[in-house]
Amino acid sequence: MASSEGNKLWGGRFVGNTDPIMEKFNASIAYDQRMWEADIKGSKAYVKALQKAGLVTQNEMEQILTGLDKVFDEWSKGEFKIKPGDEDIHTANERRLKEFIGDPAGKLHTGRSRNDQVATDTRLWLRDAINTLKELALQLISTMVERAAVEIEILCPGYTHMQRAQPIRWSHWILSHAVALSRDVERLEDIRKHVNVMPLGSFFHSPELKFDSISINSMDATGQRDFVAEFLFWASMCITHLSKMAEDLILYSTKEFSFITLTDAYSTGSSLMPQKKNADSLELIRSKAGRVFGREDKEAMFDTYDTVHAVLQVTTGVISTLKVNQPAMEGALSPDMLATDLAYHLVRKGMPFREAHSCAGKAVYIAESKNIHLSQITVEDLQTVSPLFDKDVSSVWDYNRSVEQYSAPGGTARSSITAQIEHFRTWLQAQKQKP
Amino acid sequence: MASSEGNKLWGGRFVGNTDPIMEKFNASIAYDQRMWEADIKGSKAYVKALQKAGLVTQNEMEQILTGLDKVFDEWSKGEFKIKPGDEDIHTANERRLKEFIGDPAGKLHTGRSRNDQVATDTRLWLRDAINTLKELALQLISTMVERAAVEIEILCPGYTHMQRAQPIRWSHWILSHAVALSRDVERLEDIRKHVNVMPLGSFFHSPELKFDSISINSMDATGQRDFVAEFLFWASMCITHLSKMAEDLILYSTKEFSFITLTDAYSTGSSLMPQKKNADSLELIRSKAGRVFGREDKEAMFDTYDTVHAVLQVTTGVISTLKVNQPAMEGALSPDMLATDLAYHLVRKGMPFREAHSCAGKAVYIAESKNIHLSQITVEDLQTVSPLFDKDVSSVWDYNRSVEQYSAPGGTARSSITAQIEHFRTWLQAQKQKP
Amino acid sequence: MASSEGNKLWGGRFVGNTDPIMEKFNASIAYDQRMWEADIKGSKAYVKALQKAGLVTQNEMEQILTGLDKVFDEWSKGEFKIKPGDEDIHTANERRLKEFIGDPAGKLHTGRSRNDQVATDTRLWLRDAINTLKELALQLISTMVERAAVEIEILCPGYTHMQRAQPIRWSHWILSHAVALSRDVERLEDIRKHVNVMPLGSFFHSPELKFDSISINSMDATGQRDFVAEFLFWASMCITHLSKMAEDLILYSTKEFSFITLTDAYSTGSSLMPQKKNADSLELIRSKAGRVFGREDKEAMFDTYDTVHAVLQVTTGVISTLKVNQPAMEGALSPDMLATDLAYHLVRKGMPFREAHSCAGKAVYIAESKNIHLSQITVEDLQTVSPLFDKDVSSVWDYNRSVEQYSAPGGTARSSITAQIEHFRTWLQAQKQKP
Amino acid sequence: MASSEGNKLWGGRFVGNTDPIMEKFNASIAYDQRMWEADIKGSKAYVKALQKAGLVTQNEMEQILTGLDKVFDEWSKGEFKIKPGDEDIHTANERRLKEFIGDPAGKLHTGRSRNDQVATDTRLWLRDAINTLKELALQLISTMVERAAVEIEILCPGYTHMQRAQPIRWSHWILSHAVALSRDVERLEDIRKHVNVMPLGSFFHSPELKFDSISINSMDATGQRDFVAEFLFWASMCITHLSKMAEDLILYSTKEFSFITLTDAYSTGSSLMPQKKNADSLELIRSKAGRVFGREDKEAMFDTYDTVHAVLQVTTGVISTLKVNQPAMEGALSPDMLATDLAYHLVRKGMPFREAHSCAGKAVYIAESKNIHLSQITVEDLQTVSPLFDKDVSSVWDYNRSVEQYSAPGGTARSSITAQIEHFRTWLQAQKQKP
Repeated sequence: MASSEGNKLWGGRFVGNTDPIMEKFNASIAYDQRMWEADIKGSKAYVKALQKAGLVTQNEMEQILTGLDKVFDEWSKGEFKIKPGDEDIHTANERRLKEFIGDPAGKLHTGRSRNDQVATDTRLWLRDAINTLKELALQLISTMVERAAVEIEILCPGYTHMQRAQPIRWSHWILSHAVALSRDVERLEDIRKHVNVMPLGSFFHSPELKFDSISINSMDATGQRDFVAEFLFWASMCITHLSKMAEDLILYSTKEFSFITLTDAYSTGSSLMPQKKNADSLELIRSKAGRVFGREDKEAMFDTYDTVHAVLQVTTGVISTLKVNQPAMEGALSPDMLATDLAYHLVRKGMPFREAHSCAGKAVYIAESKNIHLSQITVEDLQTVSPLFDKDVSSVWDYNRSVEQYSAPGGTARSSITAQIEHFRTWLQAQKQKP
Repeated sequence: MASSEGNKLWGGRFVGNTDPIMEKFNASIAYDQRMWEADIKGSKAYVKALQKAGLVTQNEMEQILTGLDKVFDEWSKGEFKIKPGDEDIHTANERRLKEFIGDPAGKLHTGRSRNDQVATDTRLWLRDAINTLKELALQLISTMVERAAVEIEILCPGYTHMQRAQPIRWSHWILSHAVALSRDVERLEDIRKHVNVMPLGSFFHSPELKFDSISINSMDATGQRDFVAEFLFWASMCITHLSKMAEDLILYSTKEFSFITLTDAYSTGSSLMPQKKNADSLELIRSKAGRVFGREDKEAMFDTYDTVHAVLQVTTGVISTLKVNQPAMEGALSPDMLATDLAYHLVRKGMPFREAHSCAGKAVYIAESKNIHLSQITVEDLQTVSPLFDKDVSSVWDYNRSVEQYSAPGGTARSSITAQIEHFRTWLQAQKQKP
Repeated sequence: MASSEGNKLWGGRFVGNTDPIMEKFNASIAYDQRMWEADIKGSKAYVKALQKAGLVTQNEMEQILTGLDKVFDEWSKGEFKIKPGDEDIHTANERRLKEFIGDPAGKLHTGRSRNDQVATDTRLWLRDAINTLKELALQLISTMVERAAVEIEILCPGYTHMQRAQPIRWSHWILSHAVALSRDVERLEDIRKHVNVMPLGSFFHSPELKFDSISINSMDATGQRDFVAEFLFWASMCITHLSKMAEDLILYSTKEFSFITLTDAYSTGSSLMPQKKNADSLELIRSKAGRVFGREDKEAMFDTYDTVHAVLQVTTGVISTLKVNQPAMEGALSPDMLATDLAYHLVRKGMPFREAHSCAGKAVYIAESKNIHLSQITVEDLQTVSPLFDKDVSSVWDYNRSVEQYSAPGGTARSSITAQIEHFRTWLQAQKQKP
Repeated sequence: MASSEGNKLWGGRFVGNTDPIMEKFNASIAYDQRMWEADIKGSKAYVKALQKAGLVTQNEMEQILTGLDKVFDEWSKGEFKIKPGDEDIHTANERRLKEFIGDPAGKLHTGRSRNDQVATDTRLWLRDAINTLKELALQLISTMVERAAVEIEILCPGYTHMQRAQPIRWSHWILSHAVALSRDVERLEDIRKHVNVMPLGSFFHSPELKFDSISINSMDATGQRDFVAEFLFWASMCITHLSKMAEDLILYSTKEFSFITLTDAYSTGSSLMPQKKNADSLELIRSKAGRVFGREDKEAMFDTYDTVHAVLQVTTGVISTLKVNQPAMEGALSPDMLATDLAYHLVRKGMPFREAHSCAGKAVYIAESKNIHLSQITVEDLQTVSPLFDKDVSSVWDYNRSVEQYSAPGGTARSSITAQIEHFRTWLQAQKQKP
């Protein structure tokens, strides 16, 4: 046996040397060192279970706990030195423990495979990560809700297929995105439950690790990574939501729309064109949507966490600092956006909706042909389309009245928006009071 | 206005003809006709809400309801004829309704956009689809659990990285996959809640459609397809689980393993080689894993549903009919699979696990060098590795004893397996009693 | 042996019945029937090879050829009836052949496995499909080039990050997309070579099938689907190019930009809002980008082909019929888009570019602060930024001059655009003359 | 203007501070520093073009060249210090250049946007990367070919659907994978041509950068990343090939197959089970297949390059060191694998293949029922299946004869394998002589 192999975990029977490329290829310490705290926490709980089971003595347990605290100390001070043989965080911590306390370190892994340890540490780490992301998401939602409350008076076009549809409140647009994010928060709580399961169900269940439940079958427990896949899917959905919001905001920040202006803190310029001010923050948010899909490994988990962590904060920054150009928004409202109201006007006079839709369509066509606004067609001309039209049609041409008619739950009337805002304030309060 | 355009929904203002390729490109009737029942159900509830709101009369409502029942009748008898202009199921049903009852049909869509209708129908359809898949999944789990109960005595190698690891009960392997599927069922219930939300929150909430809740913001309600994405992700995870199980079974059905034999009903032959009997059912299951990812549209939803629907049934068929070759399974157990037990033997004599692991590794090396079984090494030879070895080492070489030592929850001991089986029987009972 | 199994290809040894779900699951006739012509073509060539090898007689060959012609006839008249047992196009054609000519049909498959046949047919089919797509792509490029030639005088803003950058010719924008498509055509030719390889290298090489080369290793030949993966990747890249162009055009067709108007033939309306005219054709093109990724099977190949086939034609339709609004385009040019020219103005007076960029940036800032156009800053104010500014700065404020300065190959000057157009006309000519 | 912003590229007009998260989010220096050499090389060529165009003086050019050489020197000695403001490699190099030579550094970027520079550098870097990967792939192919040459005598089962099919030469299996890799090398050469295009076509074309051609349209040139997508697709296809080979080898290295043994250098053990020897190298290769798909950015390009770079080397290591267990391979050959030969035996006596296939199938069934080998059925029993059977059937039961009958190009006969080996040796020779 080559002595250089002696400190490998399977040192007993291996007689060749490992190909160094293979070794590097196989190593995960570059990214999994982020779980150093989870690993030490898990080992401390584990050694206590070993002591209870009579597999280590009280004295050995105390040595191991003291040693682990020293390792913890080095990490938290940024003084831990990774050495060439440390292929993952678990090996690294065990190696360091042995340097501190010698032989008793070897007892820490009695009956615990590397896979068991990885599964436990990953769950502990991800549980904390989820807590952090939830807080950031709530901060963003809160920012959106309060902005919606303040700017409730501002009207703007609602768009479908990027074409002007019907007038809405700007707050209605904001809250439509807040709803999506609030669903993400709720899904994150479901995932937290799936993460917070003790995989070492077959051996011990330590109250100090605060797992919600234990796993049912040991083969499934150490092998499955469903919770990682769920987290990655969650992240991709959350970022898709932010990406869609960013897509709208990029459009609204074009010179042609001029609805909003980003602060300099969230813009970048061009090294060639001095006048450029790009909505780079929004473009970055938008571009992350595709990124988080695909892989289902631990490296993807860390990478995805970092992405969502940054994106949520940048979005909060953007939303809280952008300036709204109310005149531009309201200037973009045009009478043809009230064509649906024109149809409803006929419906109220007894015409079936499909027929009324057709009549309003003809009115739009007349206006386009004459190159005038829909509101400028004479009553006489309207009567060629339908004799039901009368002078009272003038009441249709009022954006505020149009917006206010959607006062059912979820609508864009001021009362409906206010109700949505209240709903979110209550919901946010409840979220903050959760454990 | 070209008269040929008159029956398009936006017939009023359009004056050109649509490119036929574009029309075909845009049409979804080929796949969305599957929602015919949901569409009619939704329209019936909608017209009742219109009547309550005073937007259609009692008489008009009755005409519409009677007409919708006739359309329903045609579909259920397979007599509904799709016509060239029917671009989607909603247009098709409305067109037919108008043929039956004339003008009042035009009132059905007052205040309801096509997007609203699509969103409602999709949710109604998917809710039913989820119920069906849940039932099929429960059937499969039940088959697995009962098979595990019957074959609890059979031992076989546990594998990691496709190399023999430690002896386990065959039932332990079965149940490890049942656990994954039971998580899938529970996730499906969560998704059902997200699906079962009324998107027309802004207008009406009909008790007869049995939605659990209504949506908070109308823009979000008609635009979002999160629940479809969630379903697709669920399907991909469920199929991945079945795929992994199939992967193991394919291996077990090779001539080299010979652990199991598929019945002819789940095998196919070769058009060239007369002796071939391929595990085609398993290969198909395995191959579906990648398929369900990627797209997030309605077409993907139907396609994915069909895939999972078939895969669950074929898997149930395979699992319930495969023959287990107990002698081959137990013949594959070899003494080196007890090397961990050899290490524990030393641990019980006071040696730290890492050291014991190294000693057992050296014993394996000796056996390999001498080309004998690990159990055939003499005590003298073992003592060169560690003086702690004694005659009592012979007690290690017992597969049954090895399996029985993992009697903690989730383990492979008979008592643990029995407990898992009981857990599943209770859980299945509870599932069946749910609404 | 159940007699109902007798007509299965592996009828000899199978004694059970196949699960009907499994059978349906396994069947590919629903989509692979599209290869009916390739299958018959391949079989005709194969039987001739068998005859040359002495494995069928002249008479048997003639019977088989006549029978295959009859099968061909049925397909081309739309009279071929698929029967329940026809699991794929190959089985279906062989079954029908046997009905026509009896026993000799059984000789057609001597030494040819189903996998060999699938591989050959797929290559023959895809080769034709590639030819068709290439022609459609050339048609689109030709449309774009001629449009660019006609509208060479029109200026518009170039955009980066959706913000106005520098003035360009509208034709420059068109041709930038034509370049991408011309690369796609060239890639398609490379792929055609990889497709057009005879997989049955181990047995025969028929000149009438016009393969370019034969495969090197028989195991690789029947197993590999690299050429399908290459085609799917090609399609995804091609559609991504069309998708990006569509994305720009959607933006240009918003009310806020108003650069272009789609004809009604490529627009759709709204069932709710009578005034809506959506750029649905462009949205469909854009939405297809994600679709073609992912799967690598034959079903995906057909689906992808149909998508690209439709998208190329709809895009050609859109590009050839859209109306350009020259005043809106040129009205969107603003003096700040000449800030780079202002910097170059200083560079020509000897200032390093980075410093000149900074000075021009300060000028932009002054203009914004004073709420005037960049071109309206007085020379005095400019001199506070740099003493190099003089009266001759007025020459900068000319969009045409700005555009004309980029006269190097690939630039936006009229001469460069004309050169690009000439390049494409020559290239298109050459493409059309290829075999 | 905040002075801290002064060294940003768009320093002139920006007045706010950038959000630090946004800055970090936006920075690419962490990965794009790998292009340091390409960046300096590109800048050196660019300044020479500027001098020729009269935009910098001879003296300024020399200062810039000398400065760039100093920056080069620092990078190659590992002494370059990245500073907080260095958001990408281009900014970093420019910043350092300015520290070395002061103002003239500002002239380097005249008329070159950041996007132009990124496009040029990326192409230069990827061109070199492709050269390296091509060499590694050739090394691997060469290893495979020579191994196939040495071990040409060894027979083993060919598998389809993981079930034993027909006997083949072990070398046939090796070469089937070499063919796939040789296609990859050829594709890589095509991609190299697409990479090696000068994007700054609109300005200059420097012979010292050795580009093959210049781009046609400047907007396309700086915006498109088709060549990166092509490279990523190439990598995914190449790794899929290696992954499939690894999948077979993992199977062959199971205890149950025992066809091959990996050296310790490419195996790992288990921290729990002392006897385990896992084919970790093969598992890593297999697992990389999914990884390289999906993203299309520069970060993915570097990541993918590293993956392929390592995988090719590890695979070469594995293939060159694995031990083949000839007795196990040949022991896995069984008479039923000659059932196709049995059918051909009847075909040679005049029976149509489909009928012969059925007869051979019945013979297999008889052998299975009697629990004997196919070769052990008596002639009498065979005659109950077909009267054409006679004593000469005994000639069928010869694996070598079976293998030797496939002597057409691409077959598994010794002569065909030798021809394949010769083909590859010539091809490799030709590859090595390419520039």
